[in-house]
Amino acid sequence: MQSKSGVFHFKAEAFRCNMLGYLPYQQMGTYMLDAADLHANERNFGMTYLMPRHLAWVLSRFTLEMTDMPRPAQPFEITTWVENTMKFFTSRNFKVTAGDHVLGYGRSIWAMIDTATRQPTNILEVRNGEMMQWVDSELECPIAPPTKFRFGPDCRLERSVETRYSDADINGHINSMRYIGMALDLFGPDWHREHYVRRLDAAYMAESHCGDVLNFYLEEAGDTIGVRIAKVEPATGDETDVCRCSILV
Amino acid sequence: MQSKSGVFHFKAEAFRCNMLGYLPYQQMGTYMLDAADLHANERNFGMTYLMPRHLAWVLSRFTLEMTDMPRPAQPFEITTWVENTMKFFTSRNFKVTAGDHVLGYGRSIWAMIDTATRQPTNILEVRNGEMMQWVDSELECPIAPPTKFRFGPDCRLERSVETRYSDADINGHINSMRYIGMALDLFGPDWHREHYVRRLDAAYMAESHCGDVLNFYLEEAGDTIGVRIAKVEPATGDETDVCRCSILV
Repeated sequence: MQSKSGVFHFKAEAFRCNMLGYLPYQQMGTYMLDAADLHANERNFGMTYLMPRHLAWVLSRFTLEMTDMPRPAQPFEITTWVENTMKFFTSRNFKVTAGDHVLGYGRSIWAMIDTATRQPTNILEVRNGEMMQWVDSELECPIAPPTKFRFGPDCRLERSVETRYSDADINGHINSMRYIGMALDLFGPDWHREHYVRRLDAAYMAESHCGDVLNFYLEEAGDTIGVRIAKVEPATGDETDVCRCSILV
Repeated sequence: MQSKSGVFHFKAEAFRCNMLGYLPYQQMGTYMLDAADLHANERNFGMTYLMPRHLAWVLSRFTLEMTDMPRPAQPFEITTWVENTMKFFTSRNFKVTAGDHVLGYGRSIWAMIDTATRQPTNILEVRNGEMMQWVDSELECPIAPPTKFRFGPDCRLERSVETRYSDADINGHINSMRYIGMALDLFGPDWHREHYVRRLDAAYMAESHCGDVLNFYLEEAGDTIGVRIAKVEPATGDETDVCRCSILV
């Protein structure tokens, strides 16, 4: 029988590392999503099973807290497991290690949607609630649950970005990890040399598509920075929040 | 003894695939650079050996011709070998396979520079010309040598991009594969649905840094598109070509 948790092996490709010589959050998040996908597919609740049934996992929250990051060509492992499953949400955790060295942890919360109606589906009805058997309540994820930045009146428009082909994922939506990359792209090379991102929380609120214009709003509060990303309706200029990040430095 | 060529195993991570459901050229190129780096390091002429000696490989030309691309979670292999080495240039080829299925080929030409002076170094003087022993003249790379697009007066400015943190590589230069990504980002989702890029040639002419503004010029000639990328000197507006691409669709 399959174990509840899965361990997946990666290697930090040199040309995915940043100017500081390590994997940036966007890239680490991409490996984590890959581990999540592999873990779920191996246990028959991944995309391979869901797609033909017009179901899909949608990422709702993503938290990363890395005390260290892999260096070029360094092998590392991502352990991932389902922490809990409820009717409309499931939480999945991550532990990143390089051998004995713990590099950090991640948390994520997912909804399941019907891809035709885009409405939430009852996770516990899929395969008669078989997912419950994978819930691992023993493994520990010692980082705090997802937090939200409280945006106030000081939130300022920092940048507008027209999204492009390379920003989109396999569904034609802007890649959820790319929002994180674009949020950190609000800061120049000097800022990145002087600040190590200790933790990043992302809340995904709506989908945006390749070609959408995104407005990035920024607000600072002590050692935490909030980035609010809104897509702009071309005809009316109306804005809809698609992603909100809280960045701890 | 090490074999002349090296075979490296990868897997197309789902969240690196494009909206059409396969790895885009930028991502495939990144895996190829990784294979090149691993192959060179295993034979003591990679970054690990060169960096402490203030030497570095600099990519001069890169050609990719893919008849097919890996799909999400599909394992694939990159075979890479040195085709030839001369005083100031070495050529390295790539073959991409998924089991028995050949997906495509790549060619690359590299110079070696002194990282202090940024001047070319004699490759044959490194380790007494030991690199010559790795030249594999038996493996075949059946694609045409690198070609150049002939830019004419119809070349038009298509887009200006201020480069960001996530565009830079470990040296703080704009990632060579990111130029390819940005060149293909000149085209919208509809264009990508209607056109498969059969071949891409990139010539790297100068380095640009995170924060540089890049102008993208575009010209079409039949089924080939030329993209000329120039960095803009902020004080004077003078332009220097950093990369030229020829895209065959």
